[in-house]
Amino acid sequence: MMTTDLTLLRIVLLGAGRVAAHLAPALVAAGHAVVGLWSRSPESGAALASRLPGPTTVASSLHHLPDADVYLLTLPDAVVPEVLAAARFPVGALVAHTAGALPLSVFAPYKEQLRGGVFYPLQTFGPGRAIAWPSVPLCLEAADASALATLHQLAASLSRDVRELDSVRRLQLHVAAVWVSNFPNHLLGIGRELLEDAGLPWELLHPLIRETLDKALAQPPFTAQTGPAVRHDAATLARHAAALAARPRWQELYQQLTASIQATAGPLPAAANNASGLRL
Amino acid sequence: MMTTDLTLLRIVLLGAGRVAAHLAPALVAAGHAVVGLWSRSPESGAALASRLPGPTTVASSLHHLPDADVYLLTLPDAVVPEVLAAARFPVGALVAHTAGALPLSVFAPYKEQLRGGVFYPLQTFGPGRAIAWPSVPLCLEAADASALATLHQLAASLSRDVRELDSVRRLQLHVAAVWVSNFPNHLLGIGRELLEDAGLPWELLHPLIRETLDKALAQPPFTAQTGPAVRHDAATLARHAAALAARPRWQELYQQLTASIQATAGPLPAAANNASGLRL
Repeated sequence: MMTTDLTLLRIVLLGAGRVAAHLAPALVAAGHAVVGLWSRSPESGAALASRLPGPTTVASSLHHLPDADVYLLTLPDAVVPEVLAAARFPVGALVAHTAGALPLSVFAPYKEQLRGGVFYPLQTFGPGRAIAWPSVPLCLEAADASALATLHQLAASLSRDVRELDSVRRLQLHVAAVWVSNFPNHLLGIGRELLEDAGLPWELLHPLIRETLDKALAQPPFTAQTGPAVRHDAATLARHAAALAARPRWQELYQQLTASIQATAGPLPAAANNASGLRL
Repeated sequence: MMTTDLTLLRIVLLGAGRVAAHLAPALVAAGHAVVGLWSRSPESGAALASRLPGPTTVASSLHHLPDADVYLLTLPDAVVPEVLAAARFPVGALVAHTAGALPLSVFAPYKEQLRGGVFYPLQTFGPGRAIAWPSVPLCLEAADASALATLHQLAASLSRDVRELDSVRRLQLHVAAVWVSNFPNHLLGIGRELLEDAGLPWELLHPLIRETLDKALAQPPFTAQTGPAVRHDAATLARHAAALAARPRWQELYQQLTASIQATAGPLPAAANNASGLRL
């Protein structure tokens, strides 16, 4: 294997889901060859292969994978161990998964047969979204030095932000990513539904959403917290609870989030928002 | 009162907090005169007045307010009724509050003395942030036609997005604003703290945060939901729970948000993410 001296790599993707659908064209655009593709769903594999310019073999079996410099497992976390157990890689193959929460040790049972690695792109991959790969952080891990060098080479061809991260810190990063991506997306979805309930256009909230985000990236969000929860504004909180009466699940989540904001901020300073002592 | 024929208005602000600090300079920039300012804190009132170019009287008493075309109550919701009860406005004065969750009926006890109104800017006003007023939705309400006309005149001088909204729908909008602004800000704050716990730079999450937001504004967020919760990925959820063990409050909130995502999405389609039936 002399892959670390090559600029362009031969890659096989195992998995043809969202990550693969975004990663494969980016790899091709960077000059690499996606020489093979395997998917649990042959239809998805064929569909993705047909969107790639070069010749891509759609492997019909995990026992007959093409030769490659890197095998990338773009699979749901739960499926990775099962695919590793079933697949037959060339001896010494570099096999990397793309998951945030899966430890490198998932490769431990196969250390005599392959070099395991992690190639984790920290981004959310929605269908039909153009991904700005040069700014996507790529988090790498491998025990084998040559494997790590090859992953660096691959990562550097896609992104300006490449870093090595061990499994513990990658998991911490992945948890944080859920807090700043999956969870806010859910809350935005609730906001959109509530606007629809009120017969108001979703776009009405867009300037607020954009400024909230810009502000949160410019200064620590906890210090920029606004709203009735952090003000301990009981009258407004009661009005909001009443306004959510038709949505009891969200009414409950509203209270849980309010409690979390108040617990994080601590008690209100004495006399803040206190209307007594009004000067006439 | 011939204010509806005037382009420029004389304005008195009651309250010198965040909303006033952003609104007063914008009013002046639009050509209006902030002729007076009253604050529960005379220091805050004087500080804000000193930042305005024109002569602004800092009223020492709610009994001696300057004449004006519009009195804007830029006060915490809970303080508005108390200030209304204490203040002496010129007979027939146009007095508008700027709160999302306060009904117009807060003015009902004073309908013989003043014309009540609502001038609600749908935005979050952080200290030191430049607000793009032309895109801030301004939501107006008034029972008196001339009051509504004056509020329209004022609003149109600041923003392209002016609309009339009754108290019920304004409250619904305000609740939705909490979901898309205050709550996501809290979650971003948790993400930032978790990165700090892990010794990782906050900036690492910025591309993910921006793409999450862009995606949520481009397509319905519920249909774009990703992550271990919506996938019912039990192994990853368990790893995340373990990773949050040192933060039990957030561990609990993580579970509450996960439950909400799963309840919203409904059960997973049979066989999705199911590794059984793996084709070799």
